[in-house]
Amino acid sequence: MQSRVIIENVSPEIDGGRHFIKRIVGQPVNIQCVMLADGHEVLAGEISFKHEKEKNWKSSPIGLLQNDIWAGGFRVEKQGFYDYKIVGWVDAPLTWQHNIERKIKDNQHVNVELLDGLQYLTPLLKQVTKPEAKYLEKVIALFQSENDYKDAINEALSYQLESIFKTYPQKTFATTYDKKLRVYVDRQKAMFSSWYEFFPRSASKQIGKHGTFKDCEELMPRVAELGFDVVYFPPIHPIGIDHRKGKNNATTALPDDVGSPWAIGGTEGGHTDIHPQLGTLEDFKSLIKVAAEHNIELAMDYALQCSPNHPYVKKYPQWFKWRPDGTVQYAENPPKKYQDILPINFETEDWKNLWDELLSILMYWCNVGIKIFRVDNPHTKSFYFWEWAINEVKKKYPDTLFLAEAFTRPHVMHSLAKMGFSQSYTYYTWRNTKAELIQYMQEISNDIGNQYFRPNFWPNTPDINPYILQNGNQSLYMSRYFMAATLSSNYGMYGPVYEFIIHEPMQGKEEYYYSEKYEIKTWDWNYRNRMTDLIKRVNQIRKENPALQLTYNFINAPVQDEYIIAYLKQDESKTNNILCVVNMDPYNRRGANLQMPLSALGVPEGYPLLMHDLITGAKYIWTKEWNYVELSPELPFHLFRIERV
Amino acid sequence: MQSRVIIENVSPEIDGGRHFIKRIVGQPVNIQCVMLADGHEVLAGEISFKHEKEKNWKSSPIGLLQNDIWAGGFRVEKQGFYDYKIVGWVDAPLTWQHNIERKIKDNQHVNVELLDGLQYLTPLLKQVTKPEAKYLEKVIALFQSENDYKDAINEALSYQLESIFKTYPQKTFATTYDKKLRVYVDRQKAMFSSWYEFFPRSASKQIGKHGTFKDCEELMPRVAELGFDVVYFPPIHPIGIDHRKGKNNATTALPDDVGSPWAIGGTEGGHTDIHPQLGTLEDFKSLIKVAAEHNIELAMDYALQCSPNHPYVKKYPQWFKWRPDGTVQYAENPPKKYQDILPINFETEDWKNLWDELLSILMYWCNVGIKIFRVDNPHTKSFYFWEWAINEVKKKYPDTLFLAEAFTRPHVMHSLAKMGFSQSYTYYTWRNTKAELIQYMQEISNDIGNQYFRPNFWPNTPDINPYILQNGNQSLYMSRYFMAATLSSNYGMYGPVYEFIIHEPMQGKEEYYYSEKYEIKTWDWNYRNRMTDLIKRVNQIRKENPALQLTYNFINAPVQDEYIIAYLKQDESKTNNILCVVNMDPYNRRGANLQMPLSALGVPEGYPLLMHDLITGAKYIWTKEWNYVELSPELPFHLFRIERV
Repeated sequence: MQSRVIIENVSPEIDGGRHFIKRIVGQPVNIQCVMLADGHEVLAGEISFKHEKEKNWKSSPIGLLQNDIWAGGFRVEKQGFYDYKIVGWVDAPLTWQHNIERKIKDNQHVNVELLDGLQYLTPLLKQVTKPEAKYLEKVIALFQSENDYKDAINEALSYQLESIFKTYPQKTFATTYDKKLRVYVDRQKAMFSSWYEFFPRSASKQIGKHGTFKDCEELMPRVAELGFDVVYFPPIHPIGIDHRKGKNNATTALPDDVGSPWAIGGTEGGHTDIHPQLGTLEDFKSLIKVAAEHNIELAMDYALQCSPNHPYVKKYPQWFKWRPDGTVQYAENPPKKYQDILPINFETEDWKNLWDELLSILMYWCNVGIKIFRVDNPHTKSFYFWEWAINEVKKKYPDTLFLAEAFTRPHVMHSLAKMGFSQSYTYYTWRNTKAELIQYMQEISNDIGNQYFRPNFWPNTPDINPYILQNGNQSLYMSRYFMAATLSSNYGMYGPVYEFIIHEPMQGKEEYYYSEKYEIKTWDWNYRNRMTDLIKRVNQIRKENPALQLTYNFINAPVQDEYIIAYLKQDESKTNNILCVVNMDPYNRRGANLQMPLSALGVPEGYPLLMHDLITGAKYIWTKEWNYVELSPELPFHLFRIERV
Repeated sequence: MQSRVIIENVSPEIDGGRHFIKRIVGQPVNIQCVMLADGHEVLAGEISFKHEKEKNWKSSPIGLLQNDIWAGGFRVEKQGFYDYKIVGWVDAPLTWQHNIERKIKDNQHVNVELLDGLQYLTPLLKQVTKPEAKYLEKVIALFQSENDYKDAINEALSYQLESIFKTYPQKTFATTYDKKLRVYVDRQKAMFSSWYEFFPRSASKQIGKHGTFKDCEELMPRVAELGFDVVYFPPIHPIGIDHRKGKNNATTALPDDVGSPWAIGGTEGGHTDIHPQLGTLEDFKSLIKVAAEHNIELAMDYALQCSPNHPYVKKYPQWFKWRPDGTVQYAENPPKKYQDILPINFETEDWKNLWDELLSILMYWCNVGIKIFRVDNPHTKSFYFWEWAINEVKKKYPDTLFLAEAFTRPHVMHSLAKMGFSQSYTYYTWRNTKAELIQYMQEISNDIGNQYFRPNFWPNTPDINPYILQNGNQSLYMSRYFMAATLSSNYGMYGPVYEFIIHEPMQGKEEYYYSEKYEIKTWDWNYRNRMTDLIKRVNQIRKENPALQLTYNFINAPVQDEYIIAYLKQDESKTNNILCVVNMDPYNRRGANLQMPLSALGVPEGYPLLMHDLITGAKYIWTKEWNYVELSPELPFHLFRIERV
């Protein structure tokens, strides 16, 4: 109770330390807090941090920003959890030096104060280096001498003495902030990834034929050429027969209908089995290997529901709900029914075995070589299960990443991210106007969510054929793609239908007509167009420019046209500066003045900047704050790297 | 782990539950939180609360406000601590009813669902009242009957059934929010008080004579006439001799100088002793009694420092700092020196005895009959000591209130309030312009501080003769007074000098020339003027109008003049509505249009409102949104009660 320092208002801090923040290897953790004490003394503090597998705490000082607000930070170097804490104390030696300085400047005689300082110098002799000890001994002698007052006060004020006090702080009665604070560190792909989704059963080159993993292997060069580094497959498991869905989500399937891959489980097995027509486990392992040779990781769908034919239904009937008439409860959101799948009852008394089994599925595929899971509808399964399962997987396989497919209310999406999901789908799909996009980017960038919620922007998915795309032309498809890939460091697209601008909707719905979810498609994988050219170029530029490997670095650049959006992205060091300019009007050439965010760039008006368009190769020199831009629907964007002239 | 509900973002919550919020008896505690769960089921929740001395928890339901945000509350009835917590669960019976309703509206056949409902009805039979049980038995029979389908579905959807489900909730796998949340409840005076400060040694009617408690007794009728309910005295203890301050803070006192009362302690005793010239303990008790007869409470100064002659210095040398030359360390903030007082060293190894002794001072005076302490410079003493001491006092004397005299940085002032101070001095003293006042009121009203920081507005104190008052005329003094008393439910003034507009400053400083802090004054206590008339009237109006008994109910009413400020204050029920209008220009008559805050008043434009000026008795009827007001410096305000015509 001799402590006098108060530490509070720590940020980042998620729900009082209930949840961890997230970083990738090499990123800084910047911390602010309020630190204060009674009186007028000099305070000092530090951040102590250590990786969970290290024994010793490291520390890094915090400094006063303004009125009682202190800041500091550290950099995370390894994957896994780091613990960190904030420690503060009334610094008696620094206070002594501060006070004696004020008195000396006020021409007060400080003989007694010099002697008073000995109590801080003498104990240091045991701690410091030899040269420092030599210096301290000299100062101690001066302080005690009656004849060297002038030299004594010079040394009392010396930077060298201050530096020794700061290097060997006397942390008397230190206060440690009492909440447990943690940061989880992922590999870089958690923050920077380019996803390509396609249905492996549509991978065959032969019309109407069920694709195989072998067919997929042959597509890897194409995916690599486009520049993606994650390929995500809808579920690859056996598909149920009972209540199988027909084309266009028909409740009755015809004999040759293949069903929705999300109706997992059949006589051939469940979540750890492979749909026989796709191939064998060996084929799958081979595909993972071929993909890796192209620097592509396979992401797998983890969809926790069962077709009525799933082996679990017989083996673990206690995991499902049963109705009074003896039938099993299928999935529903009344009045809607999803008869081809059964939900798992997380309230089952057998929850412990259930959790273990569900975890074992993840562990099985991790062992096979999968490191990325796209989790289907995680918001309809117990959040506490996710917290536990993700943590368990990462303990053994720290490279594993989880993308939460939850298109739902903001708090629900944030809650999942706090529980441990590495990435999350977002509302980008429905943010269409310039104003909506700017607001959304500022909202996600400034919210505390930027500490744990990593967006993944998708212009479309097999489930979502958004209204804006349903009548879109190639210009619109290009700009929606371009913005997803440059606003967000993580982005993805649902494959061939986007490149080939296939967008016929189910009448009045945001779904695809004759959706690939319910049938096999055959695509001309050799086809190339302006869209594929663009994808290839943008993915290449993303790899070369760290400014595009972060999401929360969005800075709006005002443009005097409601269809032209512009934004600056900067890497952490601010040496890589990318300015994107997009004409969101897919039908008209538009021109307007754009205001350069000069203060973010740290240059005055008049300073010449080389605007290097990385798409076209064109170069311009801009010297003014306001500059005219003009874009046609044929190539509706600039992607400028701002370079020194 | 079968729980599925997440509760987070609870407000109010101070530093993750580290500190309590504050209320006075009868006030509501309104709570919001985010509550959500996986899936689409119906959630329900409640706030559980109990007074620390009660055994059983009471509960009050929370309801959904919007997207995952829930709200509820309870009212505190007794002084002391209440604990409260938030509990939430997936409500299976309500979900069943919600789902069956959707299916019925979709014309689905729900026989099986009716039978499914029995699991929720049957267990209720044991809990409900007899009439409810009779009803439930009827419904159970209907659900099982094959011939009464129509009646069965009617009852399945019935409000009565829903009501029973809500009255007897089935809190399966409930989640309880894991932070400890508390509210401390004070008596009303914590929130609503009118302070009058004067120096008892200046209470004599004889020029130059040292006043006594007996003299003070004679002044109580005057204080009561003015309408104050707290009289605060600077310290009443013996005053030190060594380094005693002379007039105008001179470092050397003349033989007849009385010194600063804040230099506590002398040969006659310390903090539990009374300055002999003021009287005896019996005199003091008598004064407390006389004051009480006038509905006035005496507030005492608790100033934790010692003159060099304080008995503690000899008895407990370990509580002070000693210099290498054997002298004691006086108070200083280098280069400034305060030689007449010694600070207490809260870092002493003997801190336990120190804390006990300091607490015993409070307990001593509480026992004498004091219930209010004005604490001198609490921000230069250990904050953890305050937290402990205030709590200890309140355990035994729950009526006790503490006013923190800390005019310092915002975080420091807030930290003290969190530690338990009942009221706090504020920046009102330096908020001079209309814009500054509106901003300050909105800042303190909207900040989380409104849960624990209770402002006390003072236009002046013996320490502060603010620049704005130094050249002020009576109009300015009236408006500064008026705003303190109507903006804040707690306010105070430093006595006669304010009424008599005595404001000669120390050159260039915000201090009084020939300050009463260092000498005895003699005041003509019989003198009355427009200021005393005003004080009398305003204090009366404050007592009669609950809208003026709250501070965080400030609503700015726009006025088209930069010198006229107007604000609405409403009581909790919004039946008492006060509109204050102040001309802050002390030299000129000013008129302008004022916009009535109609939405806060809940009336449409055109609705006639009777504007009853409680100062002058004048009445006007306003029907428009914008109304013209005009005020002269002679009477620079309206204090309207808004009444029904």
